[in-house]
Amino acid sequence: MVPRYSRPVMTAIWSPANRYRIWFEIEALACEAMAELGDIPREAARIIRERGDAAMAAFSDEDLARIDEIEAVTRHDVIAFLTWLAEKIGPESRFVHLGMTSSDVLDTCFSVQLVQATDLLLEDLDAVLAALRKQAYAHKDTVTIGRSHAIHAEPTSFGLKIAGHYAEFARNRTRLLAARSEIAVCAISGAVGTYAHIDPRVEEFVAERLGLAAEDVSTQVIPRDRHAAFFCALGVIASGIERLAVEVRHLQRSEVREAEEFFHPGQKGSSAMPHKRNPVLSENLTGLARLIRSHVVPALENVALWHERDISHSSVERNIGPDATIGLDFALTRLAGMMDKLVVYPEQMMANLESLGGVVHSGEVLLALARSGISREDAYRIVQRNAMETWTKLGQPEGRSFRENLDNDPEVAGRVDARVLDEAMDSKRHLVAVDRIFNKIFC
Amino acid sequence: MVPRYSRPVMTAIWSPANRYRIWFEIEALACEAMAELGDIPREAARIIRERGDAAMAAFSDEDLARIDEIEAVTRHDVIAFLTWLAEKIGPESRFVHLGMTSSDVLDTCFSVQLVQATDLLLEDLDAVLAALRKQAYAHKDTVTIGRSHAIHAEPTSFGLKIAGHYAEFARNRTRLLAARSEIAVCAISGAVGTYAHIDPRVEEFVAERLGLAAEDVSTQVIPRDRHAAFFCALGVIASGIERLAVEVRHLQRSEVREAEEFFHPGQKGSSAMPHKRNPVLSENLTGLARLIRSHVVPALENVALWHERDISHSSVERNIGPDATIGLDFALTRLAGMMDKLVVYPEQMMANLESLGGVVHSGEVLLALARSGISREDAYRIVQRNAMETWTKLGQPEGRSFRENLDNDPEVAGRVDARVLDEAMDSKRHLVAVDRIFNKIFC
Amino acid sequence: MVPRYSRPVMTAIWSPANRYRIWFEIEALACEAMAELGDIPREAARIIRERGDAAMAAFSDEDLARIDEIEAVTRHDVIAFLTWLAEKIGPESRFVHLGMTSSDVLDTCFSVQLVQATDLLLEDLDAVLAALRKQAYAHKDTVTIGRSHAIHAEPTSFGLKIAGHYAEFARNRTRLLAARSEIAVCAISGAVGTYAHIDPRVEEFVAERLGLAAEDVSTQVIPRDRHAAFFCALGVIASGIERLAVEVRHLQRSEVREAEEFFHPGQKGSSAMPHKRNPVLSENLTGLARLIRSHVVPALENVALWHERDISHSSVERNIGPDATIGLDFALTRLAGMMDKLVVYPEQMMANLESLGGVVHSGEVLLALARSGISREDAYRIVQRNAMETWTKLGQPEGRSFRENLDNDPEVAGRVDARVLDEAMDSKRHLVAVDRIFNKIFC
Amino acid sequence: MVPRYSRPVMTAIWSPANRYRIWFEIEALACEAMAELGDIPREAARIIRERGDAAMAAFSDEDLARIDEIEAVTRHDVIAFLTWLAEKIGPESRFVHLGMTSSDVLDTCFSVQLVQATDLLLEDLDAVLAALRKQAYAHKDTVTIGRSHAIHAEPTSFGLKIAGHYAEFARNRTRLLAARSEIAVCAISGAVGTYAHIDPRVEEFVAERLGLAAEDVSTQVIPRDRHAAFFCALGVIASGIERLAVEVRHLQRSEVREAEEFFHPGQKGSSAMPHKRNPVLSENLTGLARLIRSHVVPALENVALWHERDISHSSVERNIGPDATIGLDFALTRLAGMMDKLVVYPEQMMANLESLGGVVHSGEVLLALARSGISREDAYRIVQRNAMETWTKLGQPEGRSFRENLDNDPEVAGRVDARVLDEAMDSKRHLVAVDRIFNKIFC
Repeated sequence: MVPRYSRPVMTAIWSPANRYRIWFEIEALACEAMAELGDIPREAARIIRERGDAAMAAFSDEDLARIDEIEAVTRHDVIAFLTWLAEKIGPESRFVHLGMTSSDVLDTCFSVQLVQATDLLLEDLDAVLAALRKQAYAHKDTVTIGRSHAIHAEPTSFGLKIAGHYAEFARNRTRLLAARSEIAVCAISGAVGTYAHIDPRVEEFVAERLGLAAEDVSTQVIPRDRHAAFFCALGVIASGIERLAVEVRHLQRSEVREAEEFFHPGQKGSSAMPHKRNPVLSENLTGLARLIRSHVVPALENVALWHERDISHSSVERNIGPDATIGLDFALTRLAGMMDKLVVYPEQMMANLESLGGVVHSGEVLLALARSGISREDAYRIVQRNAMETWTKLGQPEGRSFRENLDNDPEVAGRVDARVLDEAMDSKRHLVAVDRIFNKIFC
Repeated sequence: MVPRYSRPVMTAIWSPANRYRIWFEIEALACEAMAELGDIPREAARIIRERGDAAMAAFSDEDLARIDEIEAVTRHDVIAFLTWLAEKIGPESRFVHLGMTSSDVLDTCFSVQLVQATDLLLEDLDAVLAALRKQAYAHKDTVTIGRSHAIHAEPTSFGLKIAGHYAEFARNRTRLLAARSEIAVCAISGAVGTYAHIDPRVEEFVAERLGLAAEDVSTQVIPRDRHAAFFCALGVIASGIERLAVEVRHLQRSEVREAEEFFHPGQKGSSAMPHKRNPVLSENLTGLARLIRSHVVPALENVALWHERDISHSSVERNIGPDATIGLDFALTRLAGMMDKLVVYPEQMMANLESLGGVVHSGEVLLALARSGISREDAYRIVQRNAMETWTKLGQPEGRSFRENLDNDPEVAGRVDARVLDEAMDSKRHLVAVDRIFNKIFC
Repeated sequence: MVPRYSRPVMTAIWSPANRYRIWFEIEALACEAMAELGDIPREAARIIRERGDAAMAAFSDEDLARIDEIEAVTRHDVIAFLTWLAEKIGPESRFVHLGMTSSDVLDTCFSVQLVQATDLLLEDLDAVLAALRKQAYAHKDTVTIGRSHAIHAEPTSFGLKIAGHYAEFARNRTRLLAARSEIAVCAISGAVGTYAHIDPRVEEFVAERLGLAAEDVSTQVIPRDRHAAFFCALGVIASGIERLAVEVRHLQRSEVREAEEFFHPGQKGSSAMPHKRNPVLSENLTGLARLIRSHVVPALENVALWHERDISHSSVERNIGPDATIGLDFALTRLAGMMDKLVVYPEQMMANLESLGGVVHSGEVLLALARSGISREDAYRIVQRNAMETWTKLGQPEGRSFRENLDNDPEVAGRVDARVLDEAMDSKRHLVAVDRIFNKIFC
Repeated sequence: MVPRYSRPVMTAIWSPANRYRIWFEIEALACEAMAELGDIPREAARIIRERGDAAMAAFSDEDLARIDEIEAVTRHDVIAFLTWLAEKIGPESRFVHLGMTSSDVLDTCFSVQLVQATDLLLEDLDAVLAALRKQAYAHKDTVTIGRSHAIHAEPTSFGLKIAGHYAEFARNRTRLLAARSEIAVCAISGAVGTYAHIDPRVEEFVAERLGLAAEDVSTQVIPRDRHAAFFCALGVIASGIERLAVEVRHLQRSEVREAEEFFHPGQKGSSAMPHKRNPVLSENLTGLARLIRSHVVPALENVALWHERDISHSSVERNIGPDATIGLDFALTRLAGMMDKLVVYPEQMMANLESLGGVVHSGEVLLALARSGISREDAYRIVQRNAMETWTKLGQPEGRSFRENLDNDPEVAGRVDARVLDEAMDSKRHLVAVDRIFNKIFC
C-alpha cells in the first residue's frame, strides 16, 4: 500500500523490526517451554531470553543489513535470522529452533501480526460505529426521501438510513471477530506437522503465552483456509465501506446536495474549476474498497498448497497481509472521520422530497383505494394514471400536483375521503417505526 | 450450472415451482399475521390460504406459462405472480400483499431457498467428513512421506494427512453454519424499510414460521453484505475441495502412484491411449472449485447497492444463487464418493519414501549432531554434505545411501552413536503424536 | 445463464446438437484429409461423410439419449459419441478418429463454437454502435452539464457524451476481433501434440475448411492463454456496458431526469408504488456486467494446466463458454435497444445546468482573470470566493448568481470586461470542438 | 510491491521524482505548443522550459517535502505541484497549465509511465524468449514422456515442451504490444473533454513529442477501458508464467526429478531438513502470478466511472500501476534466469518414461490393431486389457512388460507383426514432427 493510504501505527506491525521481534519471541518462548519440559538446559533458555531481548531492544538498521547479507548467501530468511541471532547469543544458540521448522516461526509470526492488525481494525470499526450512531441519532427525525432504483420511492428518515449502515458495520464487527479467531492460531509441529522432533506441549506453551490457540492439525504450515476466510471478511467489510461511500457520493451530487463531505479551508477542488467541492473522500474509499477486495481471490487461490505445503502463498501474503490491513485501517479511519464531520442539509432533503409533486405517496393512496373495496389491479391503474400525469408535467404550466390530480379524479374522489388523503400525504407517518428499530439495534 | 454437474435434489430448490410455492407461503403467512392483528378479515386469510394451497398443489406448466404471459405485459415478476394468484383466489386476493413491496417477497424467498440449499450442503459436508474419517482411521498407521515444496521432507502417516483435511472440512462446516445464519433472515418492511404500511409484527410472525430471523434494518431489501459473506464461505469451502483434489491428483500421478481414484469397469481413460487411468474426478473438482470461487467477486460487488436498493444484484443472484449451490452440492457429493472409494497403495508409499536413500531423515540426524555439542551451523553443513552426496548419485553405481555416507563420515561417526542413527532412521518414530492429534479432532 | 437472460440464437450454438454436428464435421474432414493423403481409403471417407451427414441431419433426442447411455458406461464423452457414430456408419467407422485424440475434437469444436458466438457478438456490437451513432448525432448540439465527481463541472453536449461511449464500443469491437483470432484455432496433433500418429497436413486441411488457423504448438490441447485472453476481452466489453448503464441510471434518477429508458405501455414499476418508472434495463445491465466479468478469473486460472494438459479447465469452460457469450449477447442486444429508444429531455438538461447559478463557468472566468495579468493563485482565490458565495446561498433569499457576485466584486470588475464575462458565461462556447471530434470518430 | 520482489530499474519509473519530471514535461510541451499557436508569449514558454528544466534537474528531497507541504493545505496534488513550480519559475508560471485540467497532466503522465514500464517488460519477455529458445534447441531431441492428467501419455521431446511455452510467450509479447498501444495515449482536452479552453492542436503537439497518440474522445480522463485491457494483458502473461512455473515444480518433485532449478552454493533449502533442494523460484513465481492477476478485477471495476469521471480509479491505480508492472518485471526476470540455468536430467526422463513397462505405447498399438482390420472397439478392449495387466502388476514378481503381454496375447500376435510392434514401441518415432514445429515458430 502506497504511503498516501497508510497510517504509521498499522505500518509498524508489518515492519521487519516487528517481524524479527516476534520471531525471537516465538523462539525464546519455545526454548522456555523446552527448558520446563527438561528438553534443554534451563540456563540455556535464560541466556537465550536475556541476550536475545537485549539484541532485539537494540535492533537497528545495521542488524537488518546483517540479516540481509546472510540471506544473500543462504537464500533462506529464517536461517539468516537464526544465524544473526547466534552471533548475538553465542554457543547457547544451538538450543534455539531445536526440532522446529521455519514455518513454525513464520506462520505463528504471521498469526501474531494479523491479530495485532485486527485489534487495530476493531478499534477502527468502533470509531466508525460511534460516528454512525451519532449521525443516526442526530437525524432520527430528519425526513428524507427513500429511493429505490435511484428513483424516489417513499419518505424515510435520514437517521434510519444511517442506522442501516450502523447495523451493517455491527455485523462487520462480528465478522471481524470471527476472522480474528480464524487466524489467532499457533503451530509448532515440525517439518510436516508430526511433532516428531518436538513435544506438542511446546506448541501449547507458546500458543498460550501469545494469546493464540494451538492448531488442530498443521501440515508444515497452518492451513490457508483460515487466511482465506480472514481476507474474505476484509473483503466484505470493504464492500460495506463502498456502500456507504457510494451513498455519500450520491447525496453530494449537484442535483441532490442533501449532504456533503466537510470541505477544509484552503482546500481546492479542481485546478481548472474554482467552484468545485468534490466528494473526494468517499470516491477514494470506493477505490480503496476495490483494492481490499482484490486480495480475496489470491487468498482463496492460496488454499490449495501442494501436499504438506508449497511456498507459493508466501509472496502473496508478503503483499496482501500488509496491503489489506493497512488499506482497510486507512479506509475505516477515513470513513469514521468523514461520517463524523458529514454536513447534512435537511431543508434540501425536504425540497427534493417534494420536488415530484407528491407522487411519492402513491403507495399509501393505493392502499387507501384498495381498502375502499376495489380490486388491487383497478386501484393500481387509477393511482398510476394520476401519478404519471403529475410526473410527466412536472414544472410545466399545465402541471398539477398528485393531490390535485387525485382530487379531480372521480374514481378517487368518490371512494377515498379527503382526510384519508391528507394522512396519506403526510411524510411524518413514515417515521412510525423508527424508535422501534433504533431500540433494536442501538440498545 | 450445466446439468452434467447438477443433482436434481438441489436443482429442485431453484425451480420456478419451488420459488412460487415459497412466494405464496410468504404472502399467506403475512395474511394470517394481518388477520391475527385485525388488519384484514380472518375469513379472507382463511380463503387465501385454502385456495392458494390448492392452486400451489395443482401448480403446473400451464400456470408457469400464464405467469410468464402476464409478466410479458407488466414486466414485473411479482406483479405477474400476484395477478395469477388473484385469478385463483378471487376477490379476497385484494388482501394479499397489502402494504408489502415486491422485495419483501423476493428477498425472503431467496433466504428460504438459500437455507434449503445450505441444509443440503451441510449433509454433503457430513458425507465428506465421514469418508475422510474412515480413510483417516484406516490409514492412521500407514507410513508415507510428507512433502514440502513437493520434495520429500519427513515421514508422516497417510491417516494424518487425511485428518488434516478432515479438520479443514470441520472448519468449513462451522463456516457454513455461520453463513447460514447470515442469510436466514426475513424482511417484510415495505418500500424503503419503514414499516409505514405494515405492522412489524407481521415480519416477526412470518419470520418465525419460516425459521428465519427478522432483519434488524432493511432498506427495501435485506442488505447484501449478508449474501456476500455467504458466497465467500462457499468460496472458502470450494478452495478446500481444491486442496484435497490437488492432493489426490498428485498421489495418482504416474511417478507417485500412492493412491488412485476408483476406476469403474467399462471406464475408458482416453480415446487414443487405452492404458490411461486418469484422476478425472479430482481434476473435475479442481475446475468446479474455480467456478464456485468465481461467484465471490460478483457477490461482493453486489453489496454497494444505490440508496435503499437498486436492482443490479438481481441478475447476478438469479445466476450465482443456483450455480454456486448446485455446483458445490455436486462437488461435495463427488468428493465424498471419491474419498470413500479411494484406492490406497501403502507399499508404493513405502517404496517412494525409501527412494531417496534415506535423506528424508536428515532432520533427525541434524538434531542428533546438534545434541552432540557442535553448533547448529556445523551440524547443518555436515548433514547437508552427506545428504547431497546421496541425492546427487541416486541410482548411480557409486551411489550410497545416506546412512552409509554418514557411517563413513568421521565428523559424524565420532559424535553420534550408531544406535542413535538407527532410531533417527526409523520412520515409525514420526507417528508418535498421531493418536494425540486424532483424539483432538475426532473425539 | 438462466433463460431470462438468453437469446435462442446464441443458446443454439451451445446446444448438444450443435456440438455433435461440429464434432462430426471435424471427424469427417479429418477422414477426407487422410483419404486425400492416402492414409485411409477414399471410399471409406465418402461413406463416413455420407452416412454421418445423414445421421446428423436426422439427429434427435433419441440420439442424445443413446450417447448419454454409452457415456454412463465409458465415462468418456468423445468415446461415447464415436461409439454412437459407429452404430450409424458401420464398419467404415474404424477409419474415424484414426491417430487423433479426444482433445483434437473437443478443442477444435470449442474454437468453432466460440467463433460462431463471436460473430454474433460482433453483430450485436454493430447494433450498439448504430444506436449510439444515432443518438450522438441527434444530440450533437444539445447542451448539457458535464460532471466530474458527480459535481457540475463545465457544459458539454449530450451528443459528445454519447460519442465517447461510441468510441469505447468501437475499441471494444477491435478487441473482440483480436479475441476472435486468439481462439480461431484448430489442433489435430494427437495425444501430446507430436503428430506421431497423424500427418500435420490433416490439421491444416481441417483448419482451412473450418476457417481456423492451425495451432503453432499444441500440447494435448490448444493452450489456454488464448481462451484467457478471449474471456478478458469479454470482461472489458462488459465493463464498457456497465459504464454506459451507470450513466443512464444517473441521468434517470429523480433529481436529474435528463434521460429515461422507454417505459412500455402496461409496464409496472413497483408492486407497492404505482408512480415508479425505474431504469431497470440499465440496472440489469450493471448486474450482467458483473456476471460476465466473473468469468475472467477462472479463465485465467485455467491457463496453468499440468504438463501436456489436465482436465480441470473442462468443467470451467462447459459453464463459462455458454454463460459469458449468452450473457454478453443478451446484454449487448438489450443495450442496443435501450439506447436506441432512450428518451432524452434537453430542457431538463438546461435547467440542471443553470441550477447552480452559473458557477459552472468558473473555469473560463479564472482564465479571463489570469489573462488580465494577475497570478494564477490570486485569480483562483477570487473566483473560488465568488463561486462559493453563490453555491452556499443557492435558493436562499440573499443568494445571488455567480455573475451578480462577479459584477459586484471590485477585484473582478476592474480587471475583466463585462463582454468578456458574457462570453465566459455562454454554454455554447463549449461545443466549439464537437464537429472536429465527430469527424475524427464517425468518419 | 514489497522490495523483495522489486527491481530498481522498474521502481524508478514509479518514483515521485519521475512522476514530477513527466508532469513538468507535459506542462512545458503544452506551453511550447501554445506559444507556437500564439496563445501565449514565446518568451514565456522559453523561460518556463529553461527554469523548469533546471528545477527538475536539481530536484531533491527538499522539493518533495515542499510539494507535500503545499498539498497538506490544498489537498490537491497537481495544484501543489504547480504552486511549487511557480515558486521556481516566477511570474511566467501564470502561463503554465492554461486551459488545462489536472487530469490532462495526471492521465498523460500515467500513460508515459505505463509505456516506460511496458518497454522494460518487453525486454524482459525477450530474455524469457531467449532462454526458452536456448533450452528448446538444447533438448530438441531429448526424449521424455508427455503427460496428460499427470499420467504418462506418450513420448515427446523436452525441447518440444519448451517450444510450446516459447510459443505462448511469443503470443504474450504480441499481447503486450497491443496493450502498449491501448495505453500509449495522451489527453489534453480540459475539464470535460471539450477543448473549450485549449486548442486541440496542443494535445496533438504534446502527444507527438511524447510518442503517444491523441485520445479520440476523452471525458475529463482517458477512458479506463484502455487500462482495463492493459491489466488484463498482464494477467494473461502472469498466468503463462504460472504454467511454466508449475511445470518446473512438477519436474523437480522428488519422484520425477527430470529437471531442477539451479541450487546455489551456500543455499539452504530448509532450516530443519538439510537434505532439501526446493523449487523455490518457481513456487515464488506461482505466487507472484496470483498477485499480478489480482489486479485485473479492480482494473475492470475502474471502467465504469461516473459521468465525465469520478476519482475512484485513482487510489486503485496508484497501487496496481506500480505493483503489477514491478511484480511482472521481477517475475519475468526471475523466470528468464531460472529457465536459462535450469538443470535437466535426460537419463531420469528416460527412466521415468520406461517405468510403466511400455504401456505408454498403447496408442500406437491400438492403431496397429485397428489397421489390421478389427473394429476400434475391439482393438481398444484388447489393448486396454494388456496395458492394465502390465500396469497393475508393476514392480511385482509376476509383472510383465506391455510388450511381453502383447506377445502372449493370441488376439494380438495373430494380427500384428513383431516388427510393427517394435516400431510402435520406439519412442523416437514421436519426434517425427519436431523439426517441422521448430521451423514454424523459431524461424
